[in-house]
Amino acid sequence: MATQFYSKRNLQFLLYEVLDVQSLSEFLYFQDHARETFDMVLDSADQISEKLLKPLLTEMDRKEPQLVDGKIKIHPGMFPILKKFGEDGWINAGFSYEEGGQQIPSTVLSSAAFIFQAANYSSSVFPFLTSGAANLIRSFGSQELKESFTPQMYSGEWQGTMALTEPDAGSSLSDISTTAEPTENKGVYKIKGQKIYISAGDHDGCDNVIHLMLAKIKGGPSGAKGISLFIVPQKRMQETGDRRNGGKNGISDNSQHTTQQSQLINNDVITAGIYHKMGYKGAPIAHLMVGSNDNTFGYLVGEPHKGLTYMFQMMNEARIGVGMNATAIGTAAYYASLEYAKERPQGRLISDKDMTKPQVQIIRHADVKRMLLFQKAVLEGSLALLMQCSLYADLASVTEGEAQERYHLLLDLLTPIAKSYPSEMCCLTTSAAVQIFGGAGYTTDFPVEQFYREARIHPIHEGTTGVHGLDLLGRKIMSKNGKSLQLLVAEIMKTIEKANSIDRLKPFAHKLQTYLGKTDTVTKHLLSLASKDLEIFLSDATLNLELFGIMTIAWQWLVQSIKAEEALKAGARGDDFNFYQGKIFTLRYFYEYELVKIDSLMKRLLSEDHVTVEMETAWF
Amino acid sequence: MATQFYSKRNLQFLLYEVLDVQSLSEFLYFQDHARETFDMVLDSADQISEKLLKPLLTEMDRKEPQLVDGKIKIHPGMFPILKKFGEDGWINAGFSYEEGGQQIPSTVLSSAAFIFQAANYSSSVFPFLTSGAANLIRSFGSQELKESFTPQMYSGEWQGTMALTEPDAGSSLSDISTTAEPTENKGVYKIKGQKIYISAGDHDGCDNVIHLMLAKIKGGPSGAKGISLFIVPQKRMQETGDRRNGGKNGISDNSQHTTQQSQLINNDVITAGIYHKMGYKGAPIAHLMVGSNDNTFGYLVGEPHKGLTYMFQMMNEARIGVGMNATAIGTAAYYASLEYAKERPQGRLISDKDMTKPQVQIIRHADVKRMLLFQKAVLEGSLALLMQCSLYADLASVTEGEAQERYHLLLDLLTPIAKSYPSEMCCLTTSAAVQIFGGAGYTTDFPVEQFYREARIHPIHEGTTGVHGLDLLGRKIMSKNGKSLQLLVAEIMKTIEKANSIDRLKPFAHKLQTYLGKTDTVTKHLLSLASKDLEIFLSDATLNLELFGIMTIAWQWLVQSIKAEEALKAGARGDDFNFYQGKIFTLRYFYEYELVKIDSLMKRLLSEDHVTVEMETAWF
Repeated sequence: MATQFYSKRNLQFLLYEVLDVQSLSEFLYFQDHARETFDMVLDSADQISEKLLKPLLTEMDRKEPQLVDGKIKIHPGMFPILKKFGEDGWINAGFSYEEGGQQIPSTVLSSAAFIFQAANYSSSVFPFLTSGAANLIRSFGSQELKESFTPQMYSGEWQGTMALTEPDAGSSLSDISTTAEPTENKGVYKIKGQKIYISAGDHDGCDNVIHLMLAKIKGGPSGAKGISLFIVPQKRMQETGDRRNGGKNGISDNSQHTTQQSQLINNDVITAGIYHKMGYKGAPIAHLMVGSNDNTFGYLVGEPHKGLTYMFQMMNEARIGVGMNATAIGTAAYYASLEYAKERPQGRLISDKDMTKPQVQIIRHADVKRMLLFQKAVLEGSLALLMQCSLYADLASVTEGEAQERYHLLLDLLTPIAKSYPSEMCCLTTSAAVQIFGGAGYTTDFPVEQFYREARIHPIHEGTTGVHGLDLLGRKIMSKNGKSLQLLVAEIMKTIEKANSIDRLKPFAHKLQTYLGKTDTVTKHLLSLASKDLEIFLSDATLNLELFGIMTIAWQWLVQSIKAEEALKAGARGDDFNFYQGKIFTLRYFYEYELVKIDSLMKRLLSEDHVTVEMETAWF
Repeated sequence: MATQFYSKRNLQFLLYEVLDVQSLSEFLYFQDHARETFDMVLDSADQISEKLLKPLLTEMDRKEPQLVDGKIKIHPGMFPILKKFGEDGWINAGFSYEEGGQQIPSTVLSSAAFIFQAANYSSSVFPFLTSGAANLIRSFGSQELKESFTPQMYSGEWQGTMALTEPDAGSSLSDISTTAEPTENKGVYKIKGQKIYISAGDHDGCDNVIHLMLAKIKGGPSGAKGISLFIVPQKRMQETGDRRNGGKNGISDNSQHTTQQSQLINNDVITAGIYHKMGYKGAPIAHLMVGSNDNTFGYLVGEPHKGLTYMFQMMNEARIGVGMNATAIGTAAYYASLEYAKERPQGRLISDKDMTKPQVQIIRHADVKRMLLFQKAVLEGSLALLMQCSLYADLASVTEGEAQERYHLLLDLLTPIAKSYPSEMCCLTTSAAVQIFGGAGYTTDFPVEQFYREARIHPIHEGTTGVHGLDLLGRKIMSKNGKSLQLLVAEIMKTIEKANSIDRLKPFAHKLQTYLGKTDTVTKHLLSLASKDLEIFLSDATLNLELFGIMTIAWQWLVQSIKAEEALKAGARGDDFNFYQGKIFTLRYFYEYELVKIDSLMKRLLSEDHVTVEMETAWF
């Protein structure tokens, strides 16, 4: 088993040297914090990961959750982990002091999450989901709902979920058919329907599951405009079990935080099935039947028909989270393959084939170094972009007016990219890790085959890559008359200008500017199609997304390299010298092998042959 | 479960319309055959696949082989399959009548193998390995060895293997350390060592396992030149069990074909372990200890120290076979995703978002069609190339002199490409199939996640992609003063000229010629580096291999399209019209989306920045 699974040095480089996250303490909300607090958060994540999460990585894959007598049983090793996440305050660490939180910036928390995810992706999902669900309640729910549900979620006793997908409504959320019928109690509805692919939708490591569920209130508008958000607990709170209408309004009057298991009665949410998956096996994915006995109560969050708007706010966060998951899994695979490449002797240098000499470590072969540089370039570039996004989110949360709008627009524009580029590319980086191991990588003797399987979920969940391609080109690039894109270009230009003042980086600044120009050409061409033919306009949206992914990661490599060059000039030595040299060489790799992929993409995106639009079903 | 898993129509198109394989009957060896025989072979493969192989696809993945008390137990469903392969003569179908074979061309047999592989890859491996091992014995072994071993291999009673890899010698075969010590009996050696990753290296579905094993005769030359090839049976043949020296020369005097289980005694080949793998689980992969009790006899095949030369002859065949495996798995995934895309309603057309209308089948979305066309283009292009290679092999086997040399050189040059392009790309095509299924594709409810896992072995076994990159650039392109490459270019130019006479194909012929020119520029540049710096020369050999892969598949699409255009002009209707239209549209797809990837590759390959060579271990 590989010992290193992420680089704390790199996290600190990004947090403190590149993003200067400590300066967030200038804002009131973050004023109590400094680098020391942040380091403590990272250290704590590191310790939990080493002690609890990482040792269970393989086990949880081999002994996957099972549905037994209507209840999903997860690996019992998860129980102390769930307890620990609750006890140590991870679930609400970013929330305000009044909410029992610690007001930690999301840039720091997502760095900590990255450590958990790299250690054991499946186990990291449980608290992440609870945190997201609680965040929806605290953001849009009434005071009563907050008090009734969030404390037990924060403590880790209750699991949170996001319950969106239905058998007939996956990518097309507007088509959900779960219904909500008002009861005599305001805000309380009878819910009926089914939900599929619900992560942590049921398990025996918690006392209750709080589903943040999308449903349509009967008689409401059709499509997306008729979707509302409900809290649908697996068990509802009541003083006694015999009050069938769900109490005064289905919610306990009891505001005590610790609700005893005995006080809860089933809310007619039935676990109809469990999905067995290629990877990500430690986290249970449930098929839920809701209201089959007409006895499910749901509690409206916020206003009716605004469910999708609320949910999307959380989904943006979840999407950045997915990009981070992919990057974390890729990072664990990278370090496993790096360690193997340093230890495994095989073959001899091309320039010295003397058979009487011993074999060399495979890291000395250029092709192996290429596969390692590929991983490093994609992963550290993705991590930089994702943390940049988190910083925009933090800044948007503490600024106002124009500044706030700027951060929001940048974040909105970058979200589909920061979700999709790492998700797609980490299928390839984990593949490169497998390849470095050779035959050994295909066996279960090493962890890389698991990483390869786990990586594959990310281009699918929280919106497929195709959906994000449409989001970027069809919505984000055009929104606010293209203002978001202008802001991003301005950010990139700032970096180019800075890099232009550093001799060794000038050629890279020049290259990036050239490719920025190419990107602009493509964008203008595509937008010119929008008024002519919508199908053609969006037919290659996925490729356009790929182009933007490469472009922004190239930007992030230049951002990092400016700091690396400064440190090298300041006389970095020893491990520091190696670290910064690695950054410069990985910049070179990215610009040599990855950035140039834009040339082929551009050729395609500017073409007049619309073969995918014209292809007919019968011809396949 | 998907119903279609390959296209017989496409196989017939390639065999009879494109390759004109029926004209092989003009050669003496194939004179008894005609299209009817070939169709019967394909029909027979189809029936066995439908009845026996395909129904076990999922089962064999879920219930993988186990090592129990030193013996590997495979899925019992394999027993009748192994029997059937033997009884029906599949193992030696290509061999001569004198050898009990049917003299079927390898082009036809590999098409049949493709059907088996697409139905159930794991199960197809057993007879393929036996066939390859028997082919080595018949090609290079003495009459006595042939008579002693091949009949029971042909009948399927005995399993054959290729036993090359060792813990310290994977890609670097020259470093094997298994030893062979001569005994007093000529041609009989005592073997000692260990072999890993031996497919079908032990299992309870056969009476004996015949390992074709590489070992070094003590006192022989070092490195590759000291490697010899041995038959090392799991059990050796003897009249009685107590003759410890292995009989007169370790081989039974009894030339009867059916050797009773009771006549065999163990040859000290111990199954030390079984590998559990990410996919391809139905076939057992063994770790073997040989001669641990100094009681393993091996029988020299051919001359001493020529083992690697012999083995490579078979490995070329095996490598074409691996390309075919990858293509077959990809094809099964393609048809599964195609079927799903035709049935699954989700979302609405971009140009018609009316929510009151029902959702449309996802095959109507351009992005889904793109992912289907990607699969179709890669898979049918790969299949065309692989069958072209098989035809070269058939022609080389029945011609002489210059013609024979020409086919040999073309086959040698194309082998690393035909092995690697499908292997690498089918990881991506199966990924596209998973993506089309969305969340469902990640679950074990559908077969595509299995195909995704199974595809991943192919860039590794029978030489990694990196090794084939070195083979192509460092050996094949330069061999015979570049004659092989000249021959390939001449073949491509012939196709271009033919296409130039067909209006609709002219632009594609022109494009291919342009890219052929680019390929030439890259090759000249790379070869110019060979004399300067070997490390730099070969550092991007993998990318050069990728470029050649795209180039040759583009060629194969033009080859196919010429026939499709001719058929369309001749007035093809109905299903035929659809079939040929599909070919033309897939040509368009390949040239629009895949061929242009050469531009980026070329940019990299012509660059002067040798970052992968210069990168140092400490900087990772």
